[in-house]
Amino acid sequence: MNRLKCNQPVLSDSQIIKILLIEDNRVEAELIQELFSEVNSNQFAITHAQRLSQGIKKLIDFTFDIILLDLSLPDSQGLNTVIQVKAKAPTTPIVVLTSLNDQKLAIQVVREGAQDYLIKGQFAGENLIRAIRYAIERERDRESIRQQAKRERILERMVEQIRRSLDLEEILHTTVTQIRQFLKTDRVLIYRYQADKSPTMLLEAADYSNSYPEIPAIHELFNLPQILSDNEEFIQVINSKKMSNLKPKLFNLHKQSVLAIPICNSESDLKKPQSPVYHQLWGIIIAHHCTPNRQWQTWEIDCLNQLVKQVSIAIQQSELYQKVKTDNQHLQKLVKIDSLTGIANRRRFDQVLAEELICSRRNLTPLSLILCDIDFFKAYNDTYGHWVGDNCLKEVAEAICQAAQRPSDLVARYGGEEFVVILSNTDNPGAFIVAQKIRYQMDKLKRPHAKSPIHPWVTLSLGIATTTPSHQLSSSELVQLADRALYKAKALGRDRIFSANSDPDFQV
Amino acid sequence: MNRLKCNQPVLSDSQIIKILLIEDNRVEAELIQELFSEVNSNQFAITHAQRLSQGIKKLIDFTFDIILLDLSLPDSQGLNTVIQVKAKAPTTPIVVLTSLNDQKLAIQVVREGAQDYLIKGQFAGENLIRAIRYAIERERDRESIRQQAKRERILERMVEQIRRSLDLEEILHTTVTQIRQFLKTDRVLIYRYQADKSPTMLLEAADYSNSYPEIPAIHELFNLPQILSDNEEFIQVINSKKMSNLKPKLFNLHKQSVLAIPICNSESDLKKPQSPVYHQLWGIIIAHHCTPNRQWQTWEIDCLNQLVKQVSIAIQQSELYQKVKTDNQHLQKLVKIDSLTGIANRRRFDQVLAEELICSRRNLTPLSLILCDIDFFKAYNDTYGHWVGDNCLKEVAEAICQAAQRPSDLVARYGGEEFVVILSNTDNPGAFIVAQKIRYQMDKLKRPHAKSPIHPWVTLSLGIATTTPSHQLSSSELVQLADRALYKAKALGRDRIFSANSDPDFQV
Repeated sequence: MNRLKCNQPVLSDSQIIKILLIEDNRVEAELIQELFSEVNSNQFAITHAQRLSQGIKKLIDFTFDIILLDLSLPDSQGLNTVIQVKAKAPTTPIVVLTSLNDQKLAIQVVREGAQDYLIKGQFAGENLIRAIRYAIERERDRESIRQQAKRERILERMVEQIRRSLDLEEILHTTVTQIRQFLKTDRVLIYRYQADKSPTMLLEAADYSNSYPEIPAIHELFNLPQILSDNEEFIQVINSKKMSNLKPKLFNLHKQSVLAIPICNSESDLKKPQSPVYHQLWGIIIAHHCTPNRQWQTWEIDCLNQLVKQVSIAIQQSELYQKVKTDNQHLQKLVKIDSLTGIANRRRFDQVLAEELICSRRNLTPLSLILCDIDFFKAYNDTYGHWVGDNCLKEVAEAICQAAQRPSDLVARYGGEEFVVILSNTDNPGAFIVAQKIRYQMDKLKRPHAKSPIHPWVTLSLGIATTTPSHQLSSSELVQLADRALYKAKALGRDRIFSANSDPDFQV
Repeated sequence: MNRLKCNQPVLSDSQIIKILLIEDNRVEAELIQELFSEVNSNQFAITHAQRLSQGIKKLIDFTFDIILLDLSLPDSQGLNTVIQVKAKAPTTPIVVLTSLNDQKLAIQVVREGAQDYLIKGQFAGENLIRAIRYAIERERDRESIRQQAKRERILERMVEQIRRSLDLEEILHTTVTQIRQFLKTDRVLIYRYQADKSPTMLLEAADYSNSYPEIPAIHELFNLPQILSDNEEFIQVINSKKMSNLKPKLFNLHKQSVLAIPICNSESDLKKPQSPVYHQLWGIIIAHHCTPNRQWQTWEIDCLNQLVKQVSIAIQQSELYQKVKTDNQHLQKLVKIDSLTGIANRRRFDQVLAEELICSRRNLTPLSLILCDIDFFKAYNDTYGHWVGDNCLKEVAEAICQAAQRPSDLVARYGGEEFVVILSNTDNPGAFIVAQKIRYQMDKLKRPHAKSPIHPWVTLSLGIATTTPSHQLSSSELVQLADRALYKAKALGRDRIFSANSDPDFQV
């Protein structure tokens, strides 16, 4: 339960106790000082303030082990005096010394955080010193519990910050930043173990106005067998196959302090089958303090250990998310392309045509389609076989792409041996030029076609259709028009271009 | 900072203070009891124990406001006495009453958690009572800070449990379970606002051995305009468009206590553009306590409020993950199908064939392919146009699917007007039967084909190839063989089946 409890150093008996005495009455103040000198004047250093304002000024400028407080001061009375002092020095114990023998006030004063309430004239020097010592001890205890609560909150908030994101880079960035702030140290780095078990530095949080000394030895940390073998406990860990029990490790390198915290994947949390031991070590967080002899506190390490467990889950979830997202991007691409030729498929063509038509209407620009069909492809396939036929389709796709290279052009496989080109912001003569380029590329191809009655090489017939602001067509009208133009090109003897828009007979 | 601080009720001055006095000396015990009666005997109820064991038994059976403890007992001595009592009653204040005037011991005793150390004979009744009252106040203060730390840890752990998963159902299940345990209440439910703003109960954690009364009024909570208008603050919230500032709400329904905590999406955390106000309210968590007059503590509500903020982020991340996963499944399907006919595409065919071949080799079973080609489809397309051609392809795909209906059969579009059927665990005669069924389905179709020189309807040529354990083929060999069989079927006059395996000339 007390994992973040701090074991603060305690005052040794011989240490001098610094006392702030706030008391307006000079005689009373002298009496109190005498009480101390009766017992052991060397043990106490007393600073005297006559007004609350003066006392508060001292509290700002110096630190004290205890405050002896009169409640009736020229500038403050009763309970209010305690409240004001407590506000300025919330962790310094207060012992009230007063002539007011008021039970109710005494209880209120203690409720406001004063450690004791002593009535003047009713205690000996010995009692006062005891009261002071107990007050210091109790306040320290209270402060330690309060610190514990504070640390729980800090941990909670760090986790909260880190877990706001599902993005790995953001998670790691927040992690190193938060840890550096938390430890108030020079650098915090995250290394990740690669598949080949070599460490790669992913991220660093540091004060970049400093230049940090190169510490080659830092890399030795990542020699996993060494990490695992130079420590009895680590060997046990490996033997028990509980890599997730790896503990943080402290190193001193050239008098600089290094704290290494392993990040272990506890894959069972994500309900995956258990991985081999090595795979459970995801990486290591390094805190590097350049000033010599930094003492890492146990509670700091415990807190980081807790934090890193949460970071590990955040990493795993982000990787899961990232994997699905990457798969998605891959699939998105696959969905859009024709697997044989690698160009856009029919689905993609339908999408892009719809989008481009909306654009062309909005911008009042023309849009053209070229529908291309390989002449006598059936005969080609029957002659050379499917395998050669498939290669022919790939080459034709490539040739068409060579001819339509604007970023906004889309070349798609429309059907078996049919291809289509979307030419945005292109009028009919412009489309004709692209169609001619396609024919030119086909000529360069010189792919033999023994069964073609019209040509020794593989040729294309091409049909062009254009939609213009003055004569707007729907996507199906445009495709049908291009299809009819292609049919006309075939009817006229194949191996040629026919443009629907150039013929007044063509009406949709 | 003190958001989980608890304001415990304090003892009123008139309340009786229950004291456990552990003191072996009868005379001393009587003296102490006399001290109390001198002041005000009605205010104190003293229980006396003579041995530590006896005192500890009393601590188990009863509760006390304070323990007055002698250190030298027959069964325990010195510091150990304090340690043992503290272990049994960690939150009950201890005032040590001893004749040992030992400074060092006194400090140690206070460090172990005793509130005071009084030396017998050195204090009046008034001092003792003051010491008791201060001790009670200070212990209460310490306990309150300790509780605060404990609550931070509870919150932290609840968040940790909830955030182990990226699965929405698991997150919500953990949430209701954790909240029910935390509040020790009868039921915890999660309602979600649908797009139409009606609430739907998603999940419930309850003691199902109880039957809960139907509370129709619970649904009134979800009347959003009402929630927002019956409270000044809520109106401000709506006006300032800060729905995420919605506060938990307490209701009394038929004397039963209901606590409603809104779950708000703070979409900015996920770096999305701000949504309209209504969309930010994801749902509501309802804690329902059936015993009348349950008092919900402020710190409980604050803690839940903190928790629900984390739950909200967990929900958002899980929904993000779920969305990507759903997209993925959708894309997975899209990648596998031919967009025109809706059957498997070439990519899917290649995958399945590879998998099925591995299976057939492992299980020593045969595997057959049927490659189908529409006869004179080029002429069909040229006659009827692409649009009719596409419909023809869809109908043929449908006809082939009708013929190959085993769950393990795969019908795919192989190319333009070519289809392929994978028949796992099917020998050559079996494949021939399926091919005949395909022809039968085509006959039923009776789709006119005016330009077909062989038949008034659309017909298919089919090529069959089979790989058997005694004559194993690779996927490309099998496809090539089926392709050659199809070519042979065409050469023999089309509208027929040819099986490669039935012809001794067919060798790969």
